[in-house]
Amino acid sequence: MASDDNSSRWVRVEHDGKPCFGRVEGDRIALIEGAPWEDGTATGASLPLEGTQLLAPVVPPTFYACGINYAGHARTASAEFGKTLESFWPKAPEVGYRAQSAIIGHAQPIVLPADAPPNVQAEGELAVVIGKRASRVSEAEALDHVFGYTICNDVSQREWQFADRTFWRAKNADTFKPMGPWMVTGLDLDSLVTRVFVNDEQVEQFATNNMLFGVARYIATMTQYITLVPGDVIIMGTDGHAPRIQPGDQIAIEIEGIGTLSNPVVRAA
Amino acid sequence: MASDDNSSRWVRVEHDGKPCFGRVEGDRIALIEGAPWEDGTATGASLPLEGTQLLAPVVPPTFYACGINYAGHARTASAEFGKTLESFWPKAPEVGYRAQSAIIGHAQPIVLPADAPPNVQAEGELAVVIGKRASRVSEAEALDHVFGYTICNDVSQREWQFADRTFWRAKNADTFKPMGPWMVTGLDLDSLVTRVFVNDEQVEQFATNNMLFGVARYIATMTQYITLVPGDVIIMGTDGHAPRIQPGDQIAIEIEGIGTLSNPVVRAA
Repeated sequence: MASDDNSSRWVRVEHDGKPCFGRVEGDRIALIEGAPWEDGTATGASLPLEGTQLLAPVVPPTFYACGINYAGHARTASAEFGKTLESFWPKAPEVGYRAQSAIIGHAQPIVLPADAPPNVQAEGELAVVIGKRASRVSEAEALDHVFGYTICNDVSQREWQFADRTFWRAKNADTFKPMGPWMVTGLDLDSLVTRVFVNDEQVEQFATNNMLFGVARYIATMTQYITLVPGDVIIMGTDGHAPRIQPGDQIAIEIEGIGTLSNPVVRAA
Repeated sequence: MASDDNSSRWVRVEHDGKPCFGRVEGDRIALIEGAPWEDGTATGASLPLEGTQLLAPVVPPTFYACGINYAGHARTASAEFGKTLESFWPKAPEVGYRAQSAIIGHAQPIVLPADAPPNVQAEGELAVVIGKRASRVSEAEALDHVFGYTICNDVSQREWQFADRTFWRAKNADTFKPMGPWMVTGLDLDSLVTRVFVNDEQVEQFATNNMLFGVARYIATMTQYITLVPGDVIIMGTDGHAPRIQPGDQIAIEIEGIGTLSNPVVRAA
């Protein structure tokens, strides 16, 4: 069972010219005041789920990224970069950052910059959404501070990632962080399976929770130094081989129990 | 002359339990609706400047950092880390990130984590606040997209910075990014002088605009790949030697033409 009886799905949409959270109820989106980790009072308004453009389900105040967090990806990435496995193997749950500016929603295009070299890859990742302020929490308490989960494609331009000092354009160029389609609460992490598809062909599959350092371990470690606040997002890394993507492709990341984040790839004019 | 006739000063304060922007007019703060780069309609309410706690003057959607951006700091930092100067000398304006979670305002304490090793340093930096959406702008147009400037202390724990894979706790532990006291518009960058004081003793002074890559060059380069939005902040790096700080110290960063950001240092319990 991927989710318990209290599982719910939450989207973010534009309504009356403003972003608005909503709860998915059957084939409708019931809009709420504020954020779902706050009161979440229904406004009474609703929209059809089908045909409504979904925004990224959350815009994190701070956007954290775990980097290498699966054995298989440590192996393939170290080989691809011509480095030793040891240099890629994380010794501790040290978190990095991604940029709010790069986020797009489900179905929005990933736009490759006109001068981006050819090796752009998709990375299918579980995205943890914080629901309750967390400072110096234990591993046992950590998951109580999670609101729910969504999916992120940590799109990466490898030539830039290798050559630049930072990940500014390699991982944070505009549109390089698709997120969505929605947030799901009440999940059992051990039941999740991640699958990556390029043009409907499955190119990767892994047990989502088969991480080197799990969600609770990351939160417990981070919050010894950093206060997490509601809406913060942590993307948990990818496993195996990240497929190359190119203009014209349709990239889908499915996490069983959450849903499917799908985005077309185009080249900037 | 550090500022033109249209120069104005903007703070952020708590009012009626919510953060609110205000314009400094003499010894009063005139509160406004929304942000100063929007309409900025006065609410009619005002507060005394003296005695009102100032919040960080802006909370950036994305918080950018230039890293090494002055010749003198490239020299001292490369020596301190035991690296070649060449490895520290930036070849291009590649931007990094800092975390919203680490930001505090003027006069709020910098809290050193209980287990932080001794070598914590202050870095006095110019902080650029974006006022107008910027995508693919030229160097000539870049400064038209700047709202104003404030001051940031890029507090850095060097042992962690050297040992960790990322800057998560070295530069982004809670309270490690003091910012303020206010934003100032209409500045002439060439007139600015940065001074760093530890307990009222001046330990560093440099021409603020003596950067390896200037503000306009950074914005022009970044916006070829990244869209900057109002409220985004770019901290521009520090020059010379970054002084060590310890509990009990009072650290002040003055930028002539902007003001003085001052924060006490304490140790976490």
